[in-house]
Amino acid sequence: MKEKLTIVKVGGKIVEESDTLKQLLYDFSSISGHKILVHGGGRSATNLASKLGIESKMVDGRRITDADMLKIVTMVYGGLVNKNIVAGLQALGINALGLTGADMNVIRSIKRPVKNIDYGFVGDVETTDGNLLSELIKKSIVPVMAPLTHDGKGNLLNTNADTIAGETAKALAPYFDVTLIFCFEKKGVLTNAEDDNSLIPILTPDLFKQYQTDGTINGGMIPKIENSFAALKAGVNQVIITLATAIDGKSGTIIRL
Amino acid sequence: MKEKLTIVKVGGKIVEESDTLKQLLYDFSSISGHKILVHGGGRSATNLASKLGIESKMVDGRRITDADMLKIVTMVYGGLVNKNIVAGLQALGINALGLTGADMNVIRSIKRPVKNIDYGFVGDVETTDGNLLSELIKKSIVPVMAPLTHDGKGNLLNTNADTIAGETAKALAPYFDVTLIFCFEKKGVLTNAEDDNSLIPILTPDLFKQYQTDGTINGGMIPKIENSFAALKAGVNQVIITLATAIDGKSGTIIRL
Repeated sequence: MKEKLTIVKVGGKIVEESDTLKQLLYDFSSISGHKILVHGGGRSATNLASKLGIESKMVDGRRITDADMLKIVTMVYGGLVNKNIVAGLQALGINALGLTGADMNVIRSIKRPVKNIDYGFVGDVETTDGNLLSELIKKSIVPVMAPLTHDGKGNLLNTNADTIAGETAKALAPYFDVTLIFCFEKKGVLTNAEDDNSLIPILTPDLFKQYQTDGTINGGMIPKIENSFAALKAGVNQVIITLATAIDGKSGTIIRL
Repeated sequence: MKEKLTIVKVGGKIVEESDTLKQLLYDFSSISGHKILVHGGGRSATNLASKLGIESKMVDGRRITDADMLKIVTMVYGGLVNKNIVAGLQALGINALGLTGADMNVIRSIKRPVKNIDYGFVGDVETTDGNLLSELIKKSIVPVMAPLTHDGKGNLLNTNADTIAGETAKALAPYFDVTLIFCFEKKGVLTNAEDDNSLIPILTPDLFKQYQTDGTINGGMIPKIENSFAALKAGVNQVIITLATAIDGKSGTIIRL
């Protein structure tokens, strides 16, 4: 029997405001068993960029990362957000270790090829070292992963935090009974974004196809759900999309094959 | 017989400009045996602060770290400088791992008590986990240490990089035959700061006392040398102060008890 591992991905305001972050870290620290936290930090990056007179360009919710923006996200994701989370977890008795993909070569990526859009210094994940992460986890270390990877040629690359969470879950599926929890600002996947009571409790590939065709599910939710199905197919036990205030995994939308 | 460990502390321009950084990382990667890199990043912190309209206040070469400045150094030291070094070393086949003191609770400090000067969020090192670092090193991992520590209560603290290097050297002296190399922009300790030919090849406590009394050695060099003697007394094998372009340890000033 494999031991349980919970991977929580949090993004948005919750990790970037000290009050909500404090509550989140407390909730995270209360999860029993092995765990990993994957974080975003886009709002802080946009804020810092704006203060420095650098424009944030987004295409379909993805950040265009030129050389200046790469410096911003390296500072914000790898430094400000990551290290504050690590220090906060240490205060709760959690032996956190902040990681980018470059650290111990945990996640290597390739710069996204330019097709219609040049995303700049954005990395698509190639390899994730599940063996190394599993060794750390078994020593009661809690990895805190920033959405940055590297190409092995000396370049850091900006990488979507949902992707980091999904790839990490897949890489660890051979070692642990993995539950992947995507947290955000809604109760889960909703049929009406404005109505929290319209939660879809269980989402299967067929249902997803239907909701995608009729436009019920759209935008940034689509890659999140596609990531979820890919993770399940790769052996992840369970994927849940839920509120960041409900990371016990007892509510939200369960993604199921 | 203990294995050899070289701890290199680099600060100043060399780690903050891409050309000199590249050469430094190449030189560092060429050091045989186990190694650790400790870096600064003050110039970049000052630059970023200035762009954001935040004034850098220094007292005797030490940065006053208010809440805004703590965010700046967390971004610059923990993110920008640290992660670029890690990615650069990975490209040279060195399995680097970026660490602040908060990561895995490696270096815990206490906020400096306010006496004549309120340094703000500045930490004085209390404990350094030599055992943990030695385990990492024995797995061929190369720690890259940012000058940030934590107080165990959730606060990151700005900590002088020379101190981080000295404390790390001391904590690892029971496990390795440690050489500590402080690099900067001069050939070593000079009797005349303007004359590179005035290098002091060997500096003993008696000689130091004499040079300090007659004013030959002053300013920021004094704590660096005091750190060096403390490290030697705690079992560090050798301390060298040298140029950042000479980190093979074959030139510079040798500090000796």
